[in-house]
Amino acid sequence: MTWMFGRTVASSGSSQHNKYVENTNDMTFFGCFALTELSHGSNSRAMRTTATYDPSTQEFVIHSPDFEAAKFWVGNLGKTATHAIVYAQLYTPDKVCHGLHSFVVPVRDPKTLLSLPGVLVGDMGKKLGQNGLENGFALFHNVRIPRENLLNRTGDVTPEGRYITPFKDSNKRFGASLGALSGGRVSITRIAVVNLKLAMTVAIRFSATRRQFGPTGKGEIPVLEYQLQQWRLIPYLAAIYALDHFAKSIFMNFVEFQIGQMMGDKSDRQAEMGREIHAIGCASKPLGSWTAQRGIQECREACGGHGYLAMNRLGDLRDDNDPNCTYEGDNNVLLQQTSNYLLSWFHAKHIKGSRIESPLHTVDFLDDYQKILESRFTPTTMEQCMDSAVPVAAYKWLVCFLLGESQKRLEQQRALGKGDFEAHNNSQVYYCRSLAIAYIEHDCLQKFHDLTTDQDTPAGLRPVLSKLCALYGLWSLSNHMVTLYQGNYLSGRKPAELVQMAILTLCSQLKDDAVALVDVIAPPDFILNSPIGNTDGQLYKNMWSTMMQGNKVLERPSWWKEFCSDKPVVGSLRPKL
Amino acid sequence: MTWMFGRTVASSGSSQHNKYVENTNDMTFFGCFALTELSHGSNSRAMRTTATYDPSTQEFVIHSPDFEAAKFWVGNLGKTATHAIVYAQLYTPDKVCHGLHSFVVPVRDPKTLLSLPGVLVGDMGKKLGQNGLENGFALFHNVRIPRENLLNRTGDVTPEGRYITPFKDSNKRFGASLGALSGGRVSITRIAVVNLKLAMTVAIRFSATRRQFGPTGKGEIPVLEYQLQQWRLIPYLAAIYALDHFAKSIFMNFVEFQIGQMMGDKSDRQAEMGREIHAIGCASKPLGSWTAQRGIQECREACGGHGYLAMNRLGDLRDDNDPNCTYEGDNNVLLQQTSNYLLSWFHAKHIKGSRIESPLHTVDFLDDYQKILESRFTPTTMEQCMDSAVPVAAYKWLVCFLLGESQKRLEQQRALGKGDFEAHNNSQVYYCRSLAIAYIEHDCLQKFHDLTTDQDTPAGLRPVLSKLCALYGLWSLSNHMVTLYQGNYLSGRKPAELVQMAILTLCSQLKDDAVALVDVIAPPDFILNSPIGNTDGQLYKNMWSTMMQGNKVLERPSWWKEFCSDKPVVGSLRPKL
Repeated sequence: MTWMFGRTVASSGSSQHNKYVENTNDMTFFGCFALTELSHGSNSRAMRTTATYDPSTQEFVIHSPDFEAAKFWVGNLGKTATHAIVYAQLYTPDKVCHGLHSFVVPVRDPKTLLSLPGVLVGDMGKKLGQNGLENGFALFHNVRIPRENLLNRTGDVTPEGRYITPFKDSNKRFGASLGALSGGRVSITRIAVVNLKLAMTVAIRFSATRRQFGPTGKGEIPVLEYQLQQWRLIPYLAAIYALDHFAKSIFMNFVEFQIGQMMGDKSDRQAEMGREIHAIGCASKPLGSWTAQRGIQECREACGGHGYLAMNRLGDLRDDNDPNCTYEGDNNVLLQQTSNYLLSWFHAKHIKGSRIESPLHTVDFLDDYQKILESRFTPTTMEQCMDSAVPVAAYKWLVCFLLGESQKRLEQQRALGKGDFEAHNNSQVYYCRSLAIAYIEHDCLQKFHDLTTDQDTPAGLRPVLSKLCALYGLWSLSNHMVTLYQGNYLSGRKPAELVQMAILTLCSQLKDDAVALVDVIAPPDFILNSPIGNTDGQLYKNMWSTMMQGNKVLERPSWWKEFCSDKPVVGSLRPKL
Repeated sequence: MTWMFGRTVASSGSSQHNKYVENTNDMTFFGCFALTELSHGSNSRAMRTTATYDPSTQEFVIHSPDFEAAKFWVGNLGKTATHAIVYAQLYTPDKVCHGLHSFVVPVRDPKTLLSLPGVLVGDMGKKLGQNGLENGFALFHNVRIPRENLLNRTGDVTPEGRYITPFKDSNKRFGASLGALSGGRVSITRIAVVNLKLAMTVAIRFSATRRQFGPTGKGEIPVLEYQLQQWRLIPYLAAIYALDHFAKSIFMNFVEFQIGQMMGDKSDRQAEMGREIHAIGCASKPLGSWTAQRGIQECREACGGHGYLAMNRLGDLRDDNDPNCTYEGDNNVLLQQTSNYLLSWFHAKHIKGSRIESPLHTVDFLDDYQKILESRFTPTTMEQCMDSAVPVAAYKWLVCFLLGESQKRLEQQRALGKGDFEAHNNSQVYYCRSLAIAYIEHDCLQKFHDLTTDQDTPAGLRPVLSKLCALYGLWSLSNHMVTLYQGNYLSGRKPAELVQMAILTLCSQLKDDAVALVDVIAPPDFILNSPIGNTDGQLYKNMWSTMMQGNKVLERPSWWKEFCSDKPVVGSLRPKL
């Protein structure tokens, strides 16, 4: 979190703030980032902390109007931060509010870690996971900071108290700042995939070594041999490969955007790229974090009771992945940003007739909207279905269909006299939300499909990657089958059956490669740190050894005497009324 | 767990074992139930612990062939149990194995809680949840117990070492014993619903008091006003009402069955009821535990960051509910028992022409198989769709369709030359597994539907119960829409749209009742023990107070000196090679 402090100071401040960056780098200061408040998260514009300029001392007065405006969930603020970047509503002496700005506020003495006067700062307590990080709160009681502590890249206050801003075109600034916020979400996509990789390594290795039941008279067989176990796990293994490639690709997109920012690129293309990377990050984080959340849970259950034992780490992975669904924006709220982006392209094409073409090309296919909508599912055999081109084509149709339906729904709502706010809210379920999910799944699948057909991809790898890609595509698509039937892309009995059979066949074909496929993505045993997931496959031996090294394994409890002799007499606990 | 010991001794033993029941009741002994082994769970017939009879001393020798046969996951065995019911393969002196039998084995001295010679017994360590219960392991090294410690209701060994059994018709015994095992699963269904009730109470109260965003220029609105939040939570609220009624009903069915057992009812009907209650419990546990698992996760996410704070308890609820998916049989494995049961009825009708009619009537409708399969979805308006009769009818079709398809799939597999074991395994996904789920959802919905239309249900409650019932039915059904399209029960665009609109309308109509609906099922605040879920709606005040009462909230860390002064010099940690 401390890099977030340094980076934000560097990107939002000016040369006068270099000392904070330097002091952070040499570890004299320890910074944190304080935006969220107790009563506001997603709605960041509604933050209530104030920063009122006092020209008589040339200071800002940082103040929390009440405890509900206390800064909350601030990483590192619980125990260690010495400085916070505090987001507050900037008021000039004329009582005009200039909106949310960021300020560097000292909160603890760097020499003693004691809190500074006027700052009530402390630890929020235990969370479901991620307890290696202390999250803190801060309540400010008229805390005075020098005027220079305003991070003044987007707006400043003169010594006399006049507000000035260097920006004229607020739209461009907005596009660029949206893009800058995407770094976190793009990274979270990747973090979530890492969590799923660890869980899947455990579950596949367990399933390959755990034996249970078998044909009558023959030995027991590994549980990975069961169709059901394959279907529960292998699609998530395919998802890991798809998402891993996807997360890398969009990270490179983000890097390209960041380079433009650093080079001071003020072009339309750069601003447009900011909007696009924002739309991607707002949907890739939900896709990554939810896939990991569901996948880890499936791994936990697929390992049975042993998956429920803390030593095997599936619980930690689930708990540590969980906040990925929430921080840097709640998944469901973020998806609205993506659907709004898509709808704005659609609108531009239909109203202004402009061509749909974006810097990162994720929406280009929408320019063929009409033609795509007329396409239909064509495979007639399962073998044809096992080509990832099949789900890619279906996804293109799906995104176009949902885009049209979302637009229709919005228009219906407006025709009913609903305002923009309400019209959008009432178009989320089954429409805008599904649209955003389908768009990002399409992009993820398309990128993986391109990789599997790329001549630069080693020929020896292409067969297995193609299977993973087809499986990921068909399996993801199967969540949208109703829509495909609804819009008549599919009809009759055959298509759903072909897709299902193709999924099962691909699972079964990939089953023998599954152990190798997790070996590729697994860390060394001492990092994976899960007895049932060790490379040696000695799951019982490893569990047994770990268990025997536990704390007080064989010891009787400290209260054994009370338990053995001072027992309550039966009936003595009955009420005596 | 200790009642499980007493109950099992009472039901599997004979009068000579009364002392164990008495000593358990007066708390001199503390018992546990040891079936599962380190390397075997679901496949209970494959347990490897042995009990070899030695006529020279009239003792059984209990032995674990190796550590993989150690008893595992035994509740109470970690620290406190003095006696265990151990399931072991019974060998007579002639080296014949008579299968799994249960034995009372002393493991710890009741006066000291020290383990007895030959028994290595200890604690398995931390689990993801349910840590209030200690789970233990036990490894037996030729432990000798008196012949009388065999729980001999189903089989006994004479002093000379001859095996005798009072049972002739093993099928009847099997039906009855299946039924007896169902008590646990029926109860778990109910426990899972209780977990979901607690989580939903927290999430609904939070959503009614947490405000975020709002129409431009107007105040912020409670997040429960958002269509998306309603759609995420309210169907689970409806599921609680449906499942609560269902869990009560099947518990009463189980009680009826148990009374028959206690009365020594040896009729065909009693055995048949045992099979039916087994089929119900094997699917109601998956339905209850998975609905709770998904619902609690949705509640966690719907409460945003505050849902991730341990004090609000959603984490504990999720972790404590989790093993419901695994113990008393893995959900996916259990569902096969239910589909096998349904297929056996289908088989009986088609081969022998027998009428389908069961003691608890859950399969009676299958007798109209042909007629039901010819039915189609008829509503043409959303209003018609909002009647729970619509999903009830659709579910009947669905169960019949999946039954027919499962049967076909099995026949196909057999025609390909697959053995019974393989044929069944390869028919699980999309067929048998879905069949079992559809069957139990149908039964749950049907029972709730009957309640809402029952004249004994207070007229004032019927409108809201009817809405909950219709919502639960349509929402559950929406997971099966592809199958409905596939089998042509639905066709074209309209039906899916009607169902979706009906779901959203019902959510919106129930939204204003949601707080009252959780008040009905919520425990008092001090039991719910979740600051954001208190009845007073003061979520921020409650969170703040709880947080400030936490441990060392404002205290600096013990290692503050090292953090402040003994910092590493930048660059000093670089490798010096």
